[in-house]
Order: sequence, then C-alpha cells, then structure tokens
Amino acid sequence: MRAAVLTALETVELQERPEPTAEPGWVVVKVESASLCGTDVHQYDGRIDTPFPRVPGHDFAGVVESVGEGVDEALVGQKVAVKPSLPCRECDQCGKGKPADCPRKKLIGLWSDGCLTEKVTVPSVNLIPRPEGVEAWQASLLEPLAVGLNTVDRLRILLGETVVVLGQGPIGLALTRLCALSGAGRLIVTDAREAPFEIARAYGATDCLDVSRVDDPKQAILDLTENGAGADIVIETSGFPASSAMCLDLVRKEGKLAHIGWANDLPPLPVVPIMAKTLTVLGIGGNGGRGQYERAQELVRTGRFDMEPLVTHRFGLDDVAEAFAVASAKTDGAIKVIVEP
Amino acid sequence: MRAAVLTALETVELQERPEPTAEPGWVVVKVESASLCGTDVHQYDGRIDTPFPRVPGHDFAGVVESVGEGVDEALVGQKVAVKPSLPCRECDQCGKGKPADCPRKKLIGLWSDGCLTEKVTVPSVNLIPRPEGVEAWQASLLEPLAVGLNTVDRLRILLGETVVVLGQGPIGLALTRLCALSGAGRLIVTDAREAPFEIARAYGATDCLDVSRVDDPKQAILDLTENGAGADIVIETSGFPASSAMCLDLVRKEGKLAHIGWANDLPPLPVVPIMAKTLTVLGIGGNGGRGQYERAQELVRTGRFDMEPLVTHRFGLDDVAEAFAVASAKTDGAIKVIVEP
Amino acid sequence: MRAAVLTALETVELQERPEPTAEPGWVVVKVESASLCGTDVHQYDGRIDTPFPRVPGHDFAGVVESVGEGVDEALVGQKVAVKPSLPCRECDQCGKGKPADCPRKKLIGLWSDGCLTEKVTVPSVNLIPRPEGVEAWQASLLEPLAVGLNTVDRLRILLGETVVVLGQGPIGLALTRLCALSGAGRLIVTDAREAPFEIARAYGATDCLDVSRVDDPKQAILDLTENGAGADIVIETSGFPASSAMCLDLVRKEGKLAHIGWANDLPPLPVVPIMAKTLTVLGIGGNGGRGQYERAQELVRTGRFDMEPLVTHRFGLDDVAEAFAVASAKTDGAIKVIVEP
Amino acid sequence: MRAAVLTALETVELQERPEPTAEPGWVVVKVESASLCGTDVHQYDGRIDTPFPRVPGHDFAGVVESVGEGVDEALVGQKVAVKPSLPCRECDQCGKGKPADCPRKKLIGLWSDGCLTEKVTVPSVNLIPRPEGVEAWQASLLEPLAVGLNTVDRLRILLGETVVVLGQGPIGLALTRLCALSGAGRLIVTDAREAPFEIARAYGATDCLDVSRVDDPKQAILDLTENGAGADIVIETSGFPASSAMCLDLVRKEGKLAHIGWANDLPPLPVVPIMAKTLTVLGIGGNGGRGQYERAQELVRTGRFDMEPLVTHRFGLDDVAEAFAVASAKTDGAIKVIVEP
Repeated sequence: MRAAVLTALETVELQERPEPTAEPGWVVVKVESASLCGTDVHQYDGRIDTPFPRVPGHDFAGVVESVGEGVDEALVGQKVAVKPSLPCRECDQCGKGKPADCPRKKLIGLWSDGCLTEKVTVPSVNLIPRPEGVEAWQASLLEPLAVGLNTVDRLRILLGETVVVLGQGPIGLALTRLCALSGAGRLIVTDAREAPFEIARAYGATDCLDVSRVDDPKQAILDLTENGAGADIVIETSGFPASSAMCLDLVRKEGKLAHIGWANDLPPLPVVPIMAKTLTVLGIGGNGGRGQYERAQELVRTGRFDMEPLVTHRFGLDDVAEAFAVASAKTDGAIKVIVEP
Repeated sequence: MRAAVLTALETVELQERPEPTAEPGWVVVKVESASLCGTDVHQYDGRIDTPFPRVPGHDFAGVVESVGEGVDEALVGQKVAVKPSLPCRECDQCGKGKPADCPRKKLIGLWSDGCLTEKVTVPSVNLIPRPEGVEAWQASLLEPLAVGLNTVDRLRILLGETVVVLGQGPIGLALTRLCALSGAGRLIVTDAREAPFEIARAYGATDCLDVSRVDDPKQAILDLTENGAGADIVIETSGFPASSAMCLDLVRKEGKLAHIGWANDLPPLPVVPIMAKTLTVLGIGGNGGRGQYERAQELVRTGRFDMEPLVTHRFGLDDVAEAFAVASAKTDGAIKVIVEP
Repeated sequence: MRAAVLTALETVELQERPEPTAEPGWVVVKVESASLCGTDVHQYDGRIDTPFPRVPGHDFAGVVESVGEGVDEALVGQKVAVKPSLPCRECDQCGKGKPADCPRKKLIGLWSDGCLTEKVTVPSVNLIPRPEGVEAWQASLLEPLAVGLNTVDRLRILLGETVVVLGQGPIGLALTRLCALSGAGRLIVTDAREAPFEIARAYGATDCLDVSRVDDPKQAILDLTENGAGADIVIETSGFPASSAMCLDLVRKEGKLAHIGWANDLPPLPVVPIMAKTLTVLGIGGNGGRGQYERAQELVRTGRFDMEPLVTHRFGLDDVAEAFAVASAKTDGAIKVIVEP
Repeated sequence: MRAAVLTALETVELQERPEPTAEPGWVVVKVESASLCGTDVHQYDGRIDTPFPRVPGHDFAGVVESVGEGVDEALVGQKVAVKPSLPCRECDQCGKGKPADCPRKKLIGLWSDGCLTEKVTVPSVNLIPRPEGVEAWQASLLEPLAVGLNTVDRLRILLGETVVVLGQGPIGLALTRLCALSGAGRLIVTDAREAPFEIARAYGATDCLDVSRVDDPKQAILDLTENGAGADIVIETSGFPASSAMCLDLVRKEGKLAHIGWANDLPPLPVVPIMAKTLTVLGIGGNGGRGQYERAQELVRTGRFDMEPLVTHRFGLDDVAEAFAVASAKTDGAIKVIVEP
C-alpha cells in the first residue's frame, strides 16, 4: 500500500509499504481522511525533531477493516474516529485502567509511524464509533475541538463574560466557536493575518484584531474591554512569543488565563502580576481524555459546530507533498489541509 | 397623579393619589413602563394575600425625576431600571453593607405601594442606570432574566449537556434562552399550551412538548433524552404540582435539578431518589443580588436576549383593569403584559 | 467450610458449604474480618427483603488465597480490602471501562452470597491492596469512611464553617471525624443515645446533643448556631424520620444539606424552603467509586482516622448468631460489631 | 504623643507628634499592639521604597478612643482589630460600595503614616470588633492568617491531599496551620533555617526540610511525595528566587500551585511545564477582603489557631529601634516581633 514518508527535512515521498495486520487487542483502520496539524508541519519543517524515515500523521478517521484477537468481530466495517495517542500500557495508570492518565502516552506519527497512508493499526480502545451524520473528514478534525472543550470545561465561562482568544489557527478558531457557544459576551479574537477573521465572525467573534496592523496590539485589545480594565478570560492559542508575552496584561483583576499555544521559545510568565491581579492561570496540555472527543463529535453531528469553513484545502495521498507545502506556508489562507487517501 | 389600586379581589381601579417626594437617600422615579408578573396576578386573583387597597407592581423602569437629601443631583433625568426589593436597612446584613443579603427584604407593590402609577419613590441604591439601547419597556422586564442568570450561574452547564426546562412562562422562556446561550445541547421545553413554543424555538429550544397532549409526559420527556436515561439538568419553572412531581425522575444519575416554580401546593420531594441517583438540588429564590440585574441588562443591550417576543400585550394606565384581566386569563397567548403610564 | 446463613427472619445458622474456586478474572479471598453494617442487620430483622437462605455480609478484608485465569499469580498471599459491590459487567458503563458508574451494581451478601464465611470469591478489580499498618479489622470498616469521604468531597467545607451531623451511628461518626479533619469550625452532632458521644468528642465534635432529652431538638440545635441562624452545612445520617424532617430548618440561608440516612419511611422534603433559603441539597448514595476507598485506607494507615473506638464487639464465626443479636439490639452501646472467621 | 519615625534607611527614631482627631466617617484608635511585618522591615532596609520621614506599621489592634461625625458614638471604648488598607473612596468600585475591590487601595504606614505610634485614625469601615478572648496582640497578627485563609479558600484542598509549603516565615507558618486544619494529608514544609520547624510541627507539618542542608532541595522534596510524582498542592510563600524557581517542578500532573511570596527579583515561570502538566496556578495578592479577617479572628478566638508560638519578641514603643533591628536580622530565631505602645 502507499504511504507518505518523511525522509528528510521538508521532504515527503510516497513509498510502498506492506499492509499491516492487527495484534491482539488492536484493529486495522482503513484511512478515509487525515488532517495535517501543527505537529506534522513542524516535523516537516524541523521545529519538532523526528527520526527519518517516518510516516507522519495522527488526526484521522476511517473504517475498521480487520480486528486482532480479543476484539469484537462486529467492529469490522464500523465507521470510526480515532484518538491519536497510544497509552504505554506498562505504567501504573495504565495498570489501574486509566490509560487517559498515562504519563508516557505517545502520539502516533511522531513516536511511531502514523496515518498518512492507506491503512494503520491502533488499539481498539482508541476507536470512537462515528454516528450517522459525521463524515470521515469531519472526524479527522476532532482534535482541536476536543482540546477546546477541555479548555472551556476548565474555564467555566459565566454568561456574558468578555473573552479574548489570541491566535486564530485551528485551535484558536475552535475556541472562538466553543466560547461563543458557552456564553461568552464580548468575544475578541486576534491573529497576524486577516484570512481567518471571516470564519471567526461566523463562529461568533464580536471583534477581530489583526495584530500586524496596529502599533500597540496590547493597548488595542484592552481598548475593546470594559473601561480598558482587561478581559474576564484570556486564551492564548497562537504559540507566538509576542502574543504570549502580553497575555497576563490582558486579563482583568481576578480574571483567568488559559494557555494552550505551545512553543519552545515562549517567554516565561512574570510572577508578580499573577499575584498582584489575583489571577488564575490554567495550563492546557491536551484534550483531557475524559469524554471530550465524544462530546466534540456530538457538537459536529448536531450542526452546532460547523467544520466546513475550517477546511481550506483537500488533497489525495498522491499529492501529499503539495499538501505539506501548503500547510507549511499557509498558502492561500490555508487553515486546515486534509489528505484523503 | 393617577394610580392603579387593588381594592378587592379581581378589582383594580384608577384613583388619584398625591405626588410622592423623596426622603433622604431616596429618589422619585417617573414610571415609563411596568410589566405584570405572576405575583401581581396572584395578588389580583387571591392566590397571594395582600392588604387592600394596594397599588400593585414592582417590575418597572423610568426616569429619575427628583432626589432626596444626600443623593447626587446629577441623577435627575437619568434613565433607570429599578431593583424591586427594598432592603429593611435595620438588620445585621444591612448594617454590614450587604443589603443584597438582607433577610427581611420586601417587594414593593406587595408590602408597600408599588409602581402601577405615574411616580414612585425608591432608595437610590435600587437604581440601575440604563445605557443607550435599552428602552424602558425592556428594562421593566429584567427580573425574569436576572432570576434566570442566577440559575445558570449556579448550574454551570457544561457545553453540550441536555437540559429540560419545565414551564414556558416568562421565567421558563428566559431560562430557555439563557440555557441556549450558556451551552445547552439538547434543550427540551414543556408547557401546557402551544402558545409559547414559537418563542421557545426562536430562543433555542430543540424540542417542545405540550404536556396536555400526551398521556405520559414524564415518559415522553425521558424518551427525548439519551438512551432515556434522563437529562443532565432539569429546571422546574412552572410551579404546577404535576410538573414539580416528575422533576426528580427526569434527571439522570449524578445530574442536577434547579427548582424555581413557586406555589403553596407543590408536592414535597421524596428523599430516596435524591440519594439513589446522587443528585444535586438547587433552590432558586430570586435574582441572587450579585450583579445579575446589570448583566441581564447587558444581554438585552447587546441583542443577545431579544425581549420583543415576550411582550404580547401593551396597555396605558387608564386600561390597567383590562391589563390585569388579560394577564390573569392569559388571553390570546399572553406571555408578558406591559403597562405604560 | 463454615458459613453463616440467614435461614429466616432473625435466624442465622452456621452451615457447612463447599469451598469456592475462582472463575477467570476472579479471586478467592480468605476472610479475616467482616463488619456488620445496617444492611446486614436489616436483612436479619426484615426491614430489607432478602431471599433465604442467604450468606450475608459485604464489608470485609482478608488475604488472596487463589486466583482465576487471567489474574496475576503474584496476588496470591496479598493482604486486601475488598470493595463490596459487583459491577454487572454487561451494561454500557461496564463496557466503557467505567464499572464504578455501573447502574446495576449489586452488593454481595444481599444479591448473592456474601462474606460471613471462611472464603469468598470476588472479581480481582474489587481488591485494594492493604499496605503495612492496616489490619484486616480496620480494612473491614472502610465503607463508612469511603461514603463519608464522598460526602465531604462534594460539600467542600470552607475552613471554620459550622457543621451539624445528625445521627452518630458508624456513618455519622465517620462524618464527624472527616468534617473535623476537613476544617469544620463548630461541629454539632446529635443522637438519640449518649453512647456515641464520647467517641464523637474524641473525633472532634464541639457540641453533642441527645435529642431524646430535649423538648425541641430543632430549636436546641439552632441555638448552638451563630445568632440561631442555622448551620452552614447539615448532614443527615440517621435515617430517622424525625431527624430528616427537621434538616432543612437547620440550614442557614444559602447553606448546604447532604442527605445520607436511608429509610423507606422518610418524610419528603418540602420544596418552598429549599427555594426560599436558596439551599443546595446533595443526595449521597454511596462511596462515589472514584478513589474514596483508597483514600479512606490512607487516612487509617496514617493514624488520622482512629478506628479503634468504633469497634465495640468482636466475635468468632461460631458466635455469629450472637453477633447479629448484639448488632440488631445495639446492646451495650454497640457501634460496630466485627466477626473474625 | 510618641511616634516611631523612619527618618532614613535603617534609622528609626522616636519623635513627638500631635494627637490626631477623627474626620467624618473616621475614628481615632488607641494602639495597644502592633506587629512588624516584612513590608515594615523592607521599608527599613530599603528593599521597598518609602518617603522619609514616615511612621511605619499597618498591622495593629487597640481601642476606639473617639469618633468623627456620622460614626456611632457607641463605638468609643470598643476593642478592635483594624484592616490595614484604606480604600481610595473615589474609584468605580468604591462608588459601587465594593471598597474591598478598590484597585487603588493603599496600605497605611507605607502610603501614609502608620500605626507605630500611640494613636492613629482610620475609616470606621476598617474596624473589626474584637470579641472576648481575642487580645490586642493576637488581633495585631491577623493579616498573615487572613492571607492564608484567602489561599486555602481558593485551593479547596481535598481531604488527604499532599501539600508543600515553601518558606516558614509568618505567612508560611500560617499556611502550615491552615492547611493542616483544612485536611492536608502529608504536609511538607521547607525553610532555610531550623528555627521555625518546632512551630511548624506543632501546627501540623508532617515533614520539615531545611533546604540549606541538602544538595538538591527539589529532589529532596519530591522524594517525600508519593512515588516522587510531586505534591497535589504547592504553596510558595518564601519570596526567595531559588524557592520560586523550583515550585512548578514540585507539583504533580493536574495539581495546583499557589504563589504568595512577593519579591522584585523572582524568576519568571516557564509556560511549557504549566501546560505539559495541566497545572492550575493561583496568584494570591492579599487577604481577599471578603470576610477572611473576621474568620481569622474566629479561628484565634476558638483556639484552633494558637498564635503564641509565632511571637518571639515583644518591645515597648521606646525600644522600637531594637524591635526593627531584631526583625530585620531575624535575631534569636525571630518570627514575629510585637511593639506594644
């Protein structure tokens, strides 16, 4: 079968690989749709280290093709979404039946070969059945929603609170929509390009600020909050140092900051303002693993989260090199790039 | 000046009364709009005892006409909404500067003459300035929203949870809208008449059930929840015994019930199901008094809560008798009846 | 082997039974200590229906004697506490790997033969390893602590709050100690006999009230709260109608009630006071199943919860009939009766 | 009257000052006891800038000697504790009757002359009546308790959680006691000297670590937590850079950090660990201003918080220079130094 293989920096080739078979407890999934995320792109451009050759990709959906020993045969033919992290199955938490809390969970596509291929094997516990009304391409985009749900679950927005979402990539856009659905009042979003703002507005943003076009982005955002006193809640999703550097200043006294944007070059947070303003800072490290994936899928199924605007580009597996080039350069206002083997 | 006066059961007359003047710390408000609520109607129909003669009415808005000693003169001419309960100003809580927690707060119109007149006096602390974009008729409808906000603040709905709102009178409709804005997923509402369902749907209800048209309302509601297992959250607003009697059965294991509907003939709640299902039962006794009025006004100002559909009838003060007759009989699908002196 | 068998109301006999063997996934536990709880006593006295003959008992601890297929052989010889409820292993929740949420969980000793015997089989997931310093008799008393922990986890006592615990049976005493450890300020406890008060005081109660000796227990309790305004938190554990009937009146405005005491003849709770006082009512239906057993054991191991005072009587299996008679009549100030096969 | 006056760095003199009189709404308090806190000492040693000459001191208690216009005469002779921060009475929050939320609140003794004198004037709203059983010296030590209460209120410790308190100065010791009272299980405390550990143990610490005597304090603390996985809760009170620098590493995955220790040279917090471990970071900037002072006093009155061990030195006003010297050098294991005019 065909597989996309990262063979060197910025080099992805189509290679022939043997078809996989399922070990006990595992299943073979035929990949119908995979979405490229920041991790894939950073493996490609070198900001994340990965051994070469490596089949990248972890956000995907498809159909169960065969099952290993101990797995219900009835799963064959089941349409599924797939959780992308594999529990280690060796640690204490795994032993206690809490794989979601496994501290050594590994993302496929990064620590092992991933989903940018025709077929892939995963443990059966990673499967989430797809109901009628959720297409494979939608199910391959659930990760940003699940991360966003984990965020709003912890933030507990009170109806009418002012929320700032910094960055309008896929996770930022997901949070814009989820905060709008969760009761945000004024919903201010920022990005360094105009491209995502049309989607952001459709998702419920009340104010969109292109930080590349103002002299003082921090003051421009504060000016949009009540009396310039800062937002009740600030969510940093961009991972850009300049954005992270201003996030504490954007929160009002006794407000909350959720930090999701991840990069190695983020500036550290000064402690005194956190104390002086009595802030609560929440670190968001993933999708929480407590049902957020399933709930994200339900938001899509019921139409409350419309994924259509997020998908700006679609490619077949044969054009995977171009898919990576577009996703990396964010060509043509690219938000989400989908590969459909 | 003219005043509407309850002189006996189901009897409201227009009488001439002297114009009020403001004591120290109080103000005279010119009434621009007053809305009739269940309390007024029950004073009229006798389900709530009130001494006669009595000027009824407590939900109103207007303009400050004059101020008493110690009140800022600049308030004259200010457009205001008015909180309807007067703190006693004698108890411990009042002494500690926490009038919102005053245990002896008294509703005007019930314990003293109310707002169905041309001018009324209230303490200046009961005023809420009305910003541009909030009309007097809207501000006279804030109470059900404030009660609803207090409810959703305590319920802390998680995005996508299934919510049942029993009863679609003004408070029930307010909660339908507020739950939709706060992240409810499936949002099931009930009433014993079809009239409010069009509004409920516009406010975000996903399922409307006329309980007068099904044999087994409880089962009909359960059938609308996932696997028939009950809702995450149930909110009883109707005050009808039959509705209150089924509310515990409608909540899923580990779910929450908020009870707002108030009547003297409510059946008591059995204890064993509360324990067996590990429920949380929240009693809602008012608007909370911690900023909910101001936040309710902001939801109206920003258009997130459209009050237009709630107002089915408007009368001048001269027609106040007809206003009460309509509100009491719920003629012509009456939801909210407004009197504009 | 010997087994205690309920053959009729108030009749428990010692019979010879075959030794059990472990199915796949199950283990045989040699019973070292079993404690009698209210359920056992009510099976004996007829307040709970049970089929006869039945081996009663579910709160126990011992040593793993043998294991079934698929269970780690290393468990043999392990000292263990045992969770008393068996998940059905057939429902959705069991299927999702959440046996703690199984809605059809069955108590051994009630729905199947129990632990008042020499050896019993249970699923390996019900085992909790006993560390050094936790004796079998202590581990057979964990259930009331785990229920109590589930209660204080949900109540979230603020340091210094006034707490009332109604009833000082084993669960009431457990809550007295756990509330004292969790920050209760004034800690008022009640019972209809003096016997448990010495323990209650040692556990941290500040005020002990024998409700059988005062004319108006409700007023007597209120008089112990600040300004007679009621307690921040009330916990009803007695299961007596008269106690449950006054619990709402004992809570202050905006306070919390936790109801644990279970009986079929409890009076229902009136709704209006729950609303008028803006109360939160928490139903407690068990130990929560989310680590409370393990945490309870740790409180015992570290000496923060001293179980010694709870155990008033100990019997061998040969004297099980007397053990039931004492537990049922609460002879000699009986709190907890232990049977050590 | 005599007043202690900071006239230059490390220079405090006794001077004669005119007796104060009370403006409308204010009262004159005769100072019975004042305690020196870190702020006073840093004004003295120059780590906090203050204009000279300045009468330092803000933590004090005494008796009301006279009252200004509009204040109840009955207050004269009342024993009081005094909240140390003066609301500005001009801002929006002050106007809304929420002086506790005043963003421009000023500490007396720093922004205006303070309490190290015989008599001082404060607004009557800053007074807290002292009940029988609370001495002036105790009431002059309430601030660290109130800050500690604000901290445990926000942390919501679950019974049995492992807590680390970094630093055992007055606030650290207060937190040790408050965490012990609030249900901490293992309670690990650190300091760079042995002196406070005897008190810490009496207050409930289970493990005391002198960080000056171990090579790797971080590892030494982690070794005291379960499986070395970190504490459920870490509270940094020392204000030392080396202590603050390790605090994130001491928290377990999904745990909480409260940061109170305040200094201008604290290293900033890296963002990635906050995300990777899904942490919650709470900034504590004061006593919260929502009843914590009153509750702190009640803990003292009831004997649950024994202040005796905190007071290592007492001086009269004539010896105020020596008092500052001792507090600054922490001579003889000094914890709290009290000045009794």
